[in-house]
Amino acid sequence: MKLRSILCLLLAATFNIFIVKAQNNMVVLETDFGVKDGAVASMKGVITQVDNNIRIYDITHEVPAFNIWEAAFRLQQTISYWPKGTVFVVVVDPGVGSKRKAIVAQTNSGHFIVTPDNGTLTLVAEKMGIKAVREIDEKTNRLPGSENSYTFHGRDIFAYTAARLASNKITFEQVGRALPQQISAISYQKAIAESNTIKGSIPVLDVQYGNVWTNIDEPLLRQAGIKNYDPVMVQIFDKDRLVFSSSMLFVNTFSDVPEQELLCYLNSEMNFSIAINMGNFAERFKIGSGPSWKIVIKK
Amino acid sequence: MKLRSILCLLLAATFNIFIVKAQNNMVVLETDFGVKDGAVASMKGVITQVDNNIRIYDITHEVPAFNIWEAAFRLQQTISYWPKGTVFVVVVDPGVGSKRKAIVAQTNSGHFIVTPDNGTLTLVAEKMGIKAVREIDEKTNRLPGSENSYTFHGRDIFAYTAARLASNKITFEQVGRALPQQISAISYQKAIAESNTIKGSIPVLDVQYGNVWTNIDEPLLRQAGIKNYDPVMVQIFDKDRLVFSSSMLFVNTFSDVPEQELLCYLNSEMNFSIAINMGNFAERFKIGSGPSWKIVIKK
Amino acid sequence: MKLRSILCLLLAATFNIFIVKAQNNMVVLETDFGVKDGAVASMKGVITQVDNNIRIYDITHEVPAFNIWEAAFRLQQTISYWPKGTVFVVVVDPGVGSKRKAIVAQTNSGHFIVTPDNGTLTLVAEKMGIKAVREIDEKTNRLPGSENSYTFHGRDIFAYTAARLASNKITFEQVGRALPQQISAISYQKAIAESNTIKGSIPVLDVQYGNVWTNIDEPLLRQAGIKNYDPVMVQIFDKDRLVFSSSMLFVNTFSDVPEQELLCYLNSEMNFSIAINMGNFAERFKIGSGPSWKIVIKK
Repeated sequence: MKLRSILCLLLAATFNIFIVKAQNNMVVLETDFGVKDGAVASMKGVITQVDNNIRIYDITHEVPAFNIWEAAFRLQQTISYWPKGTVFVVVVDPGVGSKRKAIVAQTNSGHFIVTPDNGTLTLVAEKMGIKAVREIDEKTNRLPGSENSYTFHGRDIFAYTAARLASNKITFEQVGRALPQQISAISYQKAIAESNTIKGSIPVLDVQYGNVWTNIDEPLLRQAGIKNYDPVMVQIFDKDRLVFSSSMLFVNTFSDVPEQELLCYLNSEMNFSIAINMGNFAERFKIGSGPSWKIVIKK
Repeated sequence: MKLRSILCLLLAATFNIFIVKAQNNMVVLETDFGVKDGAVASMKGVITQVDNNIRIYDITHEVPAFNIWEAAFRLQQTISYWPKGTVFVVVVDPGVGSKRKAIVAQTNSGHFIVTPDNGTLTLVAEKMGIKAVREIDEKTNRLPGSENSYTFHGRDIFAYTAARLASNKITFEQVGRALPQQISAISYQKAIAESNTIKGSIPVLDVQYGNVWTNIDEPLLRQAGIKNYDPVMVQIFDKDRLVFSSSMLFVNTFSDVPEQELLCYLNSEMNFSIAINMGNFAERFKIGSGPSWKIVIKK
Repeated sequence: MKLRSILCLLLAATFNIFIVKAQNNMVVLETDFGVKDGAVASMKGVITQVDNNIRIYDITHEVPAFNIWEAAFRLQQTISYWPKGTVFVVVVDPGVGSKRKAIVAQTNSGHFIVTPDNGTLTLVAEKMGIKAVREIDEKTNRLPGSENSYTFHGRDIFAYTAARLASNKITFEQVGRALPQQISAISYQKAIAESNTIKGSIPVLDVQYGNVWTNIDEPLLRQAGIKNYDPVMVQIFDKDRLVFSSSMLFVNTFSDVPEQELLCYLNSEMNFSIAINMGNFAERFKIGSGPSWKIVIKK
């Protein structure tokens, strides 16, 4: 009898461990805070205070200050590589304290994003689809004792809520009231093909190497008749100003061309990209990224 | 009988797991080493060699080289967000090899800090109070095989001792002999109010955004009669040189003023701070931080 | 009976936990990707998808772009501080897509390195010795769904294979076919003593502080008759151009000389190094590192 109850306890204990393993308990952070000061460390401390078994990872904290567009891009670029059930905290929040909503979005892919609804979900919504959105109820989901702090929601609301959700201290429903699935989106030039010409944009640079990434995907290239090892004519515009114009080979990989030569290729997201083998294309030709940068290519 | 002993084993095993969970087993690192070389990685390796269940986090490794003051500030800024029982390693150590003591301090809040006693504890001692100090006995608490290495105590002594303490391989008492609670402190201008004028200093900048943080807290502001949405006259001095002088609104949050406009507000630590909405105040007006920077404000 | 089977389950469960603990389950990453974009985060996501109990650490992601030599140095500098059984992923891969082999090397010390075989193992092979090498079979060891991605092997092949190896999803043998132990090595000037003169090279700078590290070790110094507190004549050459020439004291630690004074000492790897106490030697005298930088010292 006594034995049985000990067994039950043991079973529960063991089981509990398996439940913890079966659930995700992972939080991934993305901000424009940098890591020179204590902001990110405070967020991580708050998370471990909620549950010190949570595994904490980072996308990056080097999003350029206030650049919501790039935050949206980095989230979209990486989210699908993480397990379902992972909770993301994305805070690039120039409007902290304004009326932008603090939300948690659940994607169709089973990921959760805790964020101010200011455009950070633009690309994830397009790529994966949003299944449900909840507004964070700041009365119940706020770090105790932080009620008079207006300027660091990343720590007091977003990290705290993410930790509670990731560790199942609250359910998704307990985040707060349901909102329409419509999130705030930033408008930008989609990629389109007109006969053999493709227009698109430069959402982001491959900053470490200076490669130029576009939003033109493989099917669009095939549609315009571009095949491997074809020469491709590339024109890059900043608003209406022509910044770069040249032809280059469309190859599989960098080493398919000699060092210091131009090439175009499919990047790790399978999108059309431009580079110099062993060189920095963006720096050499002064190419930037964001809504104002457009690209036109044809065979 | 046999069953009972298996049960005991199981109970012990299960229990052990709960004990590990109940205890902290967390180490948080802060240094001026940067992350471009292998120094931080060596410290983390040593920690995992002691016990690979220790969870390792970072405050920052981008403290400006040799800047003990800023290390002290970042520690004080973040420590209270971490669970009791967390062990911090703070190494900004221009005097490595000199007679500064290697210590572990226990705060009244139940945190532990492993550090050279060179001023890094200045602000934590004021804010939380020091309960006990032990000098690290380098004969017993030194990475085996490192006896001839004089220049990397961060790895050989501080990280190693922190890991052993965090994982309960040694008790606090086993760190070494007890010292007086008096730690080495850096002197600086405290914040004071004289009738309606407040004098204080600029301990640190909010580097990522260029906001200027002061050591003037909310009660002092109220004492000088400053209320929300009051205009406040702000003067900033580097030693005796007037660097900035202007009036601005004291608001709750950045979006209370138009873009590019000056504002003052309570930062995430509830201290008086100065900023430009969507701009970089420190860069625009060439403001620095540290003991020589002073601020005078009045309504 | 029923009790017994529950017990068996419990035993297995508890045991399983101990097995997980007994094994290493640790992955350490080193790349030249930086942390501004999503590349490192994608690698970490893939690792957690394989097994979210894997503990992930970093040597650095700030290896200068394409600098295989420095990647080799940072690996060699830190590897021995990590537990046996740790799996390292080292990706500085200018030749991605070329015929360089994707391998896993097992060192005599019991560490594993997953890397393109392009020179990253040069110094580890010399220091620890290579016990066995396997070529990654990209048919079985590639992130499912990544077959058409040619440019991000760090994520699709190296991180994925490392995670599977670290979590014992595959054995070392299941990585792929055995290769000869001979890895690709970068040639460089070894340290040699001729009577009282020692020649060596500057493999790397202590970047954060500007100290200059050499490959001259303590036994070689003793062989040339250099003792503690001896003055040492130091000459530094870039190829054949003399860049620096001066005498300085060989001391134990920085504080043995006044601030701003030259010194030489044994660094944290017990190699001969040169510095200015509280200053930046490399910046002041424009010293670099790598195969072209040589040093000559004598008493």
